[in-house]
Amino acid sequence: MDAKAIANEFVKYYYSTFDASRANLAPLYKSQSMLTFEGQEFQGSEKIVEKLSSLPFQKVAHKVTTVDVQPGNTSGNSILVAVTGQLLVDNESNPQFFSQVFQLNNDGSGNWFVFNDVFRLNYA
Amino acid sequence: MDAKAIANEFVKYYYSTFDASRANLAPLYKSQSMLTFEGQEFQGSEKIVEKLSSLPFQKVAHKVTTVDVQPGNTSGNSILVAVTGQLLVDNESNPQFFSQVFQLNNDGSGNWFVFNDVFRLNYA
Repeated sequence: MDAKAIANEFVKYYYSTFDASRANLAPLYKSQSMLTFEGQEFQGSEKIVEKLSSLPFQKVAHKVTTVDVQPGNTSGNSILVAVTGQLLVDNESNPQFFSQVFQLNNDGSGNWFVFNDVFRLNYA
Repeated sequence: MDAKAIANEFVKYYYSTFDASRANLAPLYKSQSMLTFEGQEFQGSEKIVEKLSSLPFQKVAHKVTTVDVQPGNTSGNSILVAVTGQLLVDNESNPQFFSQVFQLNNDGSGNWFVFNDVFRLNYA
C-alpha cells in the first residue's frame, strides 16, 4: 500500500469535489463516519453531507498548503491525513487558514472511505 | 472508555511536559510511534524525542485553543486528538499558530501511547 499516493489522490479529489458540489462528497462517507466541524459533531454520511451542504457560502475554494500522511495502524487498512491550507469564500478578499484531519479506512474490498474528519478554521 | 476525558488529560500532560522538559516525553512514545514535524519524518521514541529536544529554543509555551476528539477505530483502543493553538517561543512577542494531530493507542494493559503525531506551524 502506498499510503502517500492514496492520501494525495484523496485530498485532490476531496477538495475539488467540495468546491464544485458538496453533495457529491456523500459516497466518501459511511454510516460509521464522524465529522467534527468547528466543534460540532456529526455521524453518518447523510448528516455529514447535510452539514457541509448547509454551510452559508455560494462559492468556495480550498488551497492546500501541506499534506502529511502516516499509516493509521499497523494493519495497513488505515491512513491518517493531516491537511493545512487556505479557504477563500464567496468574494471575500482575505483567505482563512484551515486545518483538517482525515483518517481513511479501507472497506475490505479496496475502497477507501472517511472514518474520521475534523475541521478547524484558525482565525489568524 | 471516555475518549474525551482521556484526550483532554493527555493534552494537558503533553504540553505541560513539553514546555517544562521535552526529554520527559519519551515514555509517551513507543518503537512504532511516528512523528511528522513540519514535514520531517521520525519513527520510534528515541528519534522522536531527539528531534523534539533539538528544537532551537530555550523557552516555549503552548497555549491550546481547541481540542477535538473522535474514536480512532471501532474497537475502542484508539483515540484521534486534533489540537490547534498558539506557540510562544523564547522572548518573541508574537505567538505562532500551530495544529497538531495525535492518534493515541491503548497498549493492551490500559496505558495510552502516541502512535501518530503530526505537527504543523501555520504562519499566519
